[in-house]
Amino acid sequence: MRSVALMQKYSNRLKRQNKSIGFVPTMGYLHKGHLSLVRRSAEENDVTVASVFVNPLQFGPKEDFKKYPRDLKGDEAALRKAGTDVLFYPEAAQMYPHPYRTYVDVEYLNDTLCGRSRPGHFKGVSTVVAKLFNIVKPDAAYFGQKDAQQAVVIRKMTKDLNMDIRLKVMPTVREKGGLAMSSRNSYLTPGQRLDAAVIYKSLKLARKLINNGERSLARITEEMRKLIRQKKSARIDYVDIVSADTLRPVKTIYGDLLIALAVYIGSTRLIDNLKIRVR
Amino acid sequence: MRSVALMQKYSNRLKRQNKSIGFVPTMGYLHKGHLSLVRRSAEENDVTVASVFVNPLQFGPKEDFKKYPRDLKGDEAALRKAGTDVLFYPEAAQMYPHPYRTYVDVEYLNDTLCGRSRPGHFKGVSTVVAKLFNIVKPDAAYFGQKDAQQAVVIRKMTKDLNMDIRLKVMPTVREKGGLAMSSRNSYLTPGQRLDAAVIYKSLKLARKLINNGERSLARITEEMRKLIRQKKSARIDYVDIVSADTLRPVKTIYGDLLIALAVYIGSTRLIDNLKIRVR
Repeated sequence: MRSVALMQKYSNRLKRQNKSIGFVPTMGYLHKGHLSLVRRSAEENDVTVASVFVNPLQFGPKEDFKKYPRDLKGDEAALRKAGTDVLFYPEAAQMYPHPYRTYVDVEYLNDTLCGRSRPGHFKGVSTVVAKLFNIVKPDAAYFGQKDAQQAVVIRKMTKDLNMDIRLKVMPTVREKGGLAMSSRNSYLTPGQRLDAAVIYKSLKLARKLINNGERSLARITEEMRKLIRQKKSARIDYVDIVSADTLRPVKTIYGDLLIALAVYIGSTRLIDNLKIRVR
Repeated sequence: MRSVALMQKYSNRLKRQNKSIGFVPTMGYLHKGHLSLVRRSAEENDVTVASVFVNPLQFGPKEDFKKYPRDLKGDEAALRKAGTDVLFYPEAAQMYPHPYRTYVDVEYLNDTLCGRSRPGHFKGVSTVVAKLFNIVKPDAAYFGQKDAQQAVVIRKMTKDLNMDIRLKVMPTVREKGGLAMSSRNSYLTPGQRLDAAVIYKSLKLARKLINNGERSLARITEEMRKLIRQKKSARIDYVDIVSADTLRPVKTIYGDLLIALAVYIGSTRLIDNLKIRVR
């Protein structure tokens, strides 16, 4: 389905029929992570809608909007196989007709971690997700833990704006070497792909240090940095240990924490994270 | 109904029963203008929901949030008589639980006219209306033309965010002397109430000048100002002739225009406007 109006009509009909709608919003070029969301939605709802829309609003002027990988044919086949009932793939001109002026922004959560390196990114994310929610009218929506900050921002938006939608955040799906699945992995050369495994290794190292009793934030993140620096292709954007709730740096290793990082492998920016609970 | 969750449950049930919901959001202390919206909604929908909520977010720090007039008992009786089925009157603590972080903002339309004198006002309006729409889930929502800029902002928000809601903007209801009905009229002394009639008189003067062929913006607004200045209690905030669509000042008297003004009568800020079409 391409048309906003038709999608809304279809969702309205489902609601009148008392059918539940599960929704998986994506930017396409789907991997096993996306498909795990679709499968869960298909299990839990009468109808599963997936969207494929590369949202210009969440890319910075120097980022990879133009070269972001696209494969609608492949996506369609994979979505169908995983249990998608409706593929919604609107045109940018229909999503943002000129002059477009309305933005949804989740303050405080939008300017840490990735928000620091990507100003405006989360404003673009919350705006497009609010729009997609209003178009698809889901009962439940599915997101991946790989984009941890996105999940926190969307959860807060949903709560603050009283959107009557259950959010499900599903575990990160990884390659055999541990690299988190991401559409941007397609940018990596075979050598870079091997190097990129260091990202998840650094997260596991941090978890091991904490489990072994290490409580110095500086030492943990420095050990992570040291490990990552061993790869010539790697350049660290950030390595942070933050509250899983507020996304702000913690002073002590205690409570529900998110170890999060962004690393450039060559010119490809990759993110990953691990949630831990320390008592 | 006081509870957000109960209101949503109730609206969901109406949707499953294929019943249409008309919605009249208000800040209470209702007058004939509000009640004309309720009556129209009752005519056009199966169920009419009215909300009474004095939204702290749309008041500036030096504005009249605290002293804004309230009369829930009177409102309830008037709403019932006019055909309201459900009165939704949430508590501020439930609408904005701490920490509240998510805002809906309609750029460009939020900083002209009243937005210039009331920075943040329309951000507060669009945010609360987005929340109320998500809670009440109306098919149609009713607003008054007296708050012309609010109507333009909400219409743009609804369109940009793909909210599947029909908006109806109903004519301003006036006192016998021409003064636009407003909850804030209750602040006026009897003498000030007489003086306040000059606001609508200045709008009618502008319309007459235009109908008689006057095409100089400066002369029209200067005639309006002169008339208003004859009242000692009056202090002009702004007098503008803008495009009814973009709310930006026009250079020539042509097309769909809004003659809009805000005038302090004593310490009470009153607004009014007239839409005209010049061909």
